[in-house]
Amino acid sequence: MTKPTKTLLRVLSGERVDPPPVWLMRQAGRYLPEYRATRAEAGDFLSLCYNPKLAAEVTFQPIRRYGFDAAILFSDILVVPFAMGQKLWFEEGEGPRLAPPLEGNTLPPRETGATVIERLAPIFETVRLLRAGLPEPVTLIGFAGAPWTIATYVLAGRGSKDQAVARLFAYREPARFRALLQDIAAVTADYLVGQIDAGAETVMLFDSWAGSLTPAQADQWVLEPNAWIVKELNARRPGVPVIGFPRGMGHRVGDFARATGVNAVSVEESADLAAAAAQLPAGVAVQGNVDPLALVAGGAALEAAVDACLSAAGDRPHIFNLGHGITPQVPPDHVAQLLARLRNTR
Amino acid sequence: MTKPTKTLLRVLSGERVDPPPVWLMRQAGRYLPEYRATRAEAGDFLSLCYNPKLAAEVTFQPIRRYGFDAAILFSDILVVPFAMGQKLWFEEGEGPRLAPPLEGNTLPPRETGATVIERLAPIFETVRLLRAGLPEPVTLIGFAGAPWTIATYVLAGRGSKDQAVARLFAYREPARFRALLQDIAAVTADYLVGQIDAGAETVMLFDSWAGSLTPAQADQWVLEPNAWIVKELNARRPGVPVIGFPRGMGHRVGDFARATGVNAVSVEESADLAAAAAQLPAGVAVQGNVDPLALVAGGAALEAAVDACLSAAGDRPHIFNLGHGITPQVPPDHVAQLLARLRNTR
Repeated sequence: MTKPTKTLLRVLSGERVDPPPVWLMRQAGRYLPEYRATRAEAGDFLSLCYNPKLAAEVTFQPIRRYGFDAAILFSDILVVPFAMGQKLWFEEGEGPRLAPPLEGNTLPPRETGATVIERLAPIFETVRLLRAGLPEPVTLIGFAGAPWTIATYVLAGRGSKDQAVARLFAYREPARFRALLQDIAAVTADYLVGQIDAGAETVMLFDSWAGSLTPAQADQWVLEPNAWIVKELNARRPGVPVIGFPRGMGHRVGDFARATGVNAVSVEESADLAAAAAQLPAGVAVQGNVDPLALVAGGAALEAAVDACLSAAGDRPHIFNLGHGITPQVPPDHVAQLLARLRNTR
Repeated sequence: MTKPTKTLLRVLSGERVDPPPVWLMRQAGRYLPEYRATRAEAGDFLSLCYNPKLAAEVTFQPIRRYGFDAAILFSDILVVPFAMGQKLWFEEGEGPRLAPPLEGNTLPPRETGATVIERLAPIFETVRLLRAGLPEPVTLIGFAGAPWTIATYVLAGRGSKDQAVARLFAYREPARFRALLQDIAAVTADYLVGQIDAGAETVMLFDSWAGSLTPAQADQWVLEPNAWIVKELNARRPGVPVIGFPRGMGHRVGDFARATGVNAVSVEESADLAAAAAQLPAGVAVQGNVDPLALVAGGAALEAAVDACLSAAGDRPHIFNLGHGITPQVPPDHVAQLLARLRNTR
């Protein structure tokens, strides 16, 4: 294969780039006035996700404003269980709802196969619009939720404290829980292949609730399903790098990377980035991990956080990012401040 | 000093005891029908905390029912900011409220000194009743919240997602935040000395929200204040062991133990107990860390969790416990099952 020229893809191939390529989780979001305007035009959040033209527009917005090195598809991880047959809606100011949830011993519906993937066609269309419209140096990132994290919403029907509903079901019905994760994993692999075929140049798997599991549970419900998906992707679309994000497992990214074979691991802000990077096999990049609240604070606190992050990454292949998504109260100027600091420090 | 005879104190002196002494965080709680009856008699939760006779009664209940090796004072970590001058109440089904919270740049009131400690007199009375009434082999544990965790409630006026209010204030006003933690630490040290003088044989510092901090923040806001309190206690009441609980920092307990000088570190369920124990200096005990949800699940899952915990502790001085508090939906039989498994396995 020819060597990639885009900075993000170079880092994902194991090369160190200085200054590191940068993008921010949830960079298309409510902190931007232009996002809020497009969102108002679309109606509710889900209508925005399923409107390729407007979803592409909000993905472009932060690229135009800031010149990030990568754009991530604007969508939501819960389109997968929605496509699998649960009802999905978003309660304003509260969060997602899926129905029906786990009831007693009865699992929610979960279809798999071609029909499910057809329901995700609008999202593939968004990816096509993005690939056609992004400036040349910008890498297009596709994404999906990892099976454990998706299962926590599928079973509870909503976000839940400590993911107790899913964790308890896994204790009581390990075989049925494993089958549920496998079904989600199969759809997720097909979904990511669809994104790649539509133009995604790399994909990221968000396991946002990995941190609530015990180490033994994490081996089963995080490492195994992520590894299964990465293997599928590597077999079906070889050469497309995969970024993993077992959020809350920053102290175990070495285990995660070896078990899954990802090309990069994203690390949450509470983890020690230097220690995380030191655990990774050679050639595996680290992504992260500025505190999203440092971006809210701005000023000297933000500059110190940027410097500390660069210093912690050391001579590792590094993708500069936050440890989690941007929050709505971030003043847009602070993002500009972060980029100026990052690009002028070295 | 003479060697302690109570099993929990022996482990806190660095000795390994087999099977390990056991108690469970929140062992006096809503999962017990006798607790719910006493709570109904007391009225609201705070009235129960400030009623020495009834607070002692609920502390005795799990000792009578299960024969735990230790009893922990029934109280709440928020009695400290309450004594320092904030209003405190509990919204049924929601959680604590403190008023006024941080408003703009204005910190809530925070008195220190003798008057504050006098307001905690009912709690010292509870400790006296407990020490007088506990069976001989049972160790009495006093406790308080650690300053960072208390500050998260003081500033937000309630429990808060990701402790964002306090973390943001710490970014924006580090000097004033440090002064706030120092005031809380000073009251906390006096409060724990009061508990020791009333009969507590060891004390535990709960830093329940340590896990939301970045490593650099944790050094400042967790390690330093805990270290300050431990040093005060060691100087003023030498020989009384201290248990630390930087929840969410189970992968950094070595740093925590060396920085603070605690005699034991409690570890949350998401941490690897064997790895945590291996980090600890010789003679420092490890406490934990069965998943509270395994106790809800019961059966084979619970027995596996008990066995795994014992095995992970290895030949380390170990206090058997959960990784966090018992949840209200635990069937009381499951606690009996845990104890039977623990005491018959070895």
